[in-house]
Amino acid sequence: MKVDINFEAKNSSNYSVYIDALTSLNLSGKVAIITNPKVSGLHLKSLLEKITADELYIITIADGESYKNQESIDLILENLFNHKFNRGSTLIAFGGGVIGDMTGFVASIYQRGIDFIQVPTTLLSQVDASVGGKTGINNKFGKNLIGAFHQPQAVYIQTDFLKSLPSREFGAGVAEIVKMAVTFDLEFFEWLEEADLRKISDLQLSIKKSVETKAWVVAQDEKEKGLRAVLNYGHTFAHVVENLTDYKKYLHGEAVSIGICMANDLAVKLDLLSSSQSQRIKNILASYDLPTTYEIKDVNAFYNHFFLDKKADDTKIKFILAKGLGDHQMRDDIDKEIVLSVLKEYSV
Amino acid sequence: MKVDINFEAKNSSNYSVYIDALTSLNLSGKVAIITNPKVSGLHLKSLLEKITADELYIITIADGESYKNQESIDLILENLFNHKFNRGSTLIAFGGGVIGDMTGFVASIYQRGIDFIQVPTTLLSQVDASVGGKTGINNKFGKNLIGAFHQPQAVYIQTDFLKSLPSREFGAGVAEIVKMAVTFDLEFFEWLEEADLRKISDLQLSIKKSVETKAWVVAQDEKEKGLRAVLNYGHTFAHVVENLTDYKKYLHGEAVSIGICMANDLAVKLDLLSSSQSQRIKNILASYDLPTTYEIKDVNAFYNHFFLDKKADDTKIKFILAKGLGDHQMRDDIDKEIVLSVLKEYSV
Repeated sequence: MKVDINFEAKNSSNYSVYIDALTSLNLSGKVAIITNPKVSGLHLKSLLEKITADELYIITIADGESYKNQESIDLILENLFNHKFNRGSTLIAFGGGVIGDMTGFVASIYQRGIDFIQVPTTLLSQVDASVGGKTGINNKFGKNLIGAFHQPQAVYIQTDFLKSLPSREFGAGVAEIVKMAVTFDLEFFEWLEEADLRKISDLQLSIKKSVETKAWVVAQDEKEKGLRAVLNYGHTFAHVVENLTDYKKYLHGEAVSIGICMANDLAVKLDLLSSSQSQRIKNILASYDLPTTYEIKDVNAFYNHFFLDKKADDTKIKFILAKGLGDHQMRDDIDKEIVLSVLKEYSV
Repeated sequence: MKVDINFEAKNSSNYSVYIDALTSLNLSGKVAIITNPKVSGLHLKSLLEKITADELYIITIADGESYKNQESIDLILENLFNHKFNRGSTLIAFGGGVIGDMTGFVASIYQRGIDFIQVPTTLLSQVDASVGGKTGINNKFGKNLIGAFHQPQAVYIQTDFLKSLPSREFGAGVAEIVKMAVTFDLEFFEWLEEADLRKISDLQLSIKKSVETKAWVVAQDEKEKGLRAVLNYGHTFAHVVENLTDYKKYLHGEAVSIGICMANDLAVKLDLLSSSQSQRIKNILASYDLPTTYEIKDVNAFYNHFFLDKKADDTKIKFILAKGLGDHQMRDDIDKEIVLSVLKEYSV
């Protein structure tokens, strides 16, 4: 299967996303696969059987979000300079979102930009992070605060790699699939209600639909001046949940699942969504063992954390809400009291 | 005077270059002026009289090419994060090429890209570096090896700032003006032969012509896949001269002046340029007290240094040559012996 990302006249970097279609990839020049010890131990052999290059290097970075920082970027750069990578060289991101974000960022700044290819190995990165060109690292001030928009040359999604994925991580990817369906595509949502993503054919189709949705959104608004922000549905709440739990208790997709439920409660209060529609969304999330609630200890503290998010400006919080099933509404005018009343429902 | 940079359909970031037209600049949101102690001591008061913003900050970086590094980038970023700069904030590069390159790079990676404005204070940065979006820093492996293509929102060139410029630095800027004329514009070249850039009206016109030429080239080839490389006329030799003299003896523009003369000698040998045309170019350079020769101690060592330049790939050296006056030719097929015979003419 193949999905074409077309920025049309706006941008020269059109590219394709291939789903279970990687048989052989022949690259010229110097190529580095950026990966982590875990992914390389499980899957590097299988990838190497499919790739040829004039010179091939493997660079491994310690696994985990806490290594998505400037030190890892420096380590990758040092390797590339030592091996005299040039403007015609190519990087391959082989791992989840952390590897993809860092590889893309290095590709964007190495000699003012070189090519990179995404080979995502988690469901979350396959359906969301690997497509659309957001790259970046964290620092002591927050997440993804340093980065660039830099589109890959191609994305190769292989569902084979998901066989070794822990079920919690699989669920985390499903949350982002549900996000795409709820905010943009009623038909996709209704199909999801009947589908079982643990079945390979349903999984492939759900990846294809998610990537198509993401690609369409990014083509409209690559640099997130408007529409692309809709992809943050559930994330405004999720970031607070992640922050209050020190990024330890929940996987990102799990926090998004909780955030979607909170955003839906707000949408119900604003008459954008019916209670039964909200319940149908929750049912899908729960069927993949995703968390759908969270115990808020202090609603005011929770509310104040919205302002730590870089996507919020100084005075307004932007909420992405489901407008029925398959549509969305962005709102930055919601009274604090209404938001607090939603948070109180989660209060212990 | 005003020059519009038009990337047309290829790129959404069109912008204008204003020459001696900055009377008042009213910016919304948070604004930081990035500068160095020397420029700020001489000219900040004059700039501040013309700028208003909701919140204005001044960040100074130590002066000089040796500070164009990751540590200075970190220092600027730290300031921006501390003052909670957001995606709607703006940076102003106020200085020469070093300040412009670093400010542009920070603007390209801060929260995946924010706006920046160039206010160049040296002739070299006014006629060349401030236009076209090349940003970057140096590291132990070489110059400009980390960076991005990130276009400014606007460029404000004020010839006032040049009054305090040492005459050697003025000459260094003239070398880049001559470069534009020789490779792209016969009429401009012939005008330069008669002009005196120390006169304000001639200076303004030469800046306008240089910026127009640069803008036209960058609009054709923003990311230097082809035509933009012509702007490296003289630079292949200049980088070796700079490197062999530890970047201490010559200003960049002075090394370019030497490099132009060497490239011309090669062009004469290849019958692309006549001896008298080569002499006319040299005459202009010499009339601004620019160096036009360099004593090569070891021609083979000089030749081998070409391969340290990142713009050269592993096996071929790309030479940009004048093809008569007002035109150019890119060549990567020139026999080593022919190049050595040119270098020998400079041998002590």
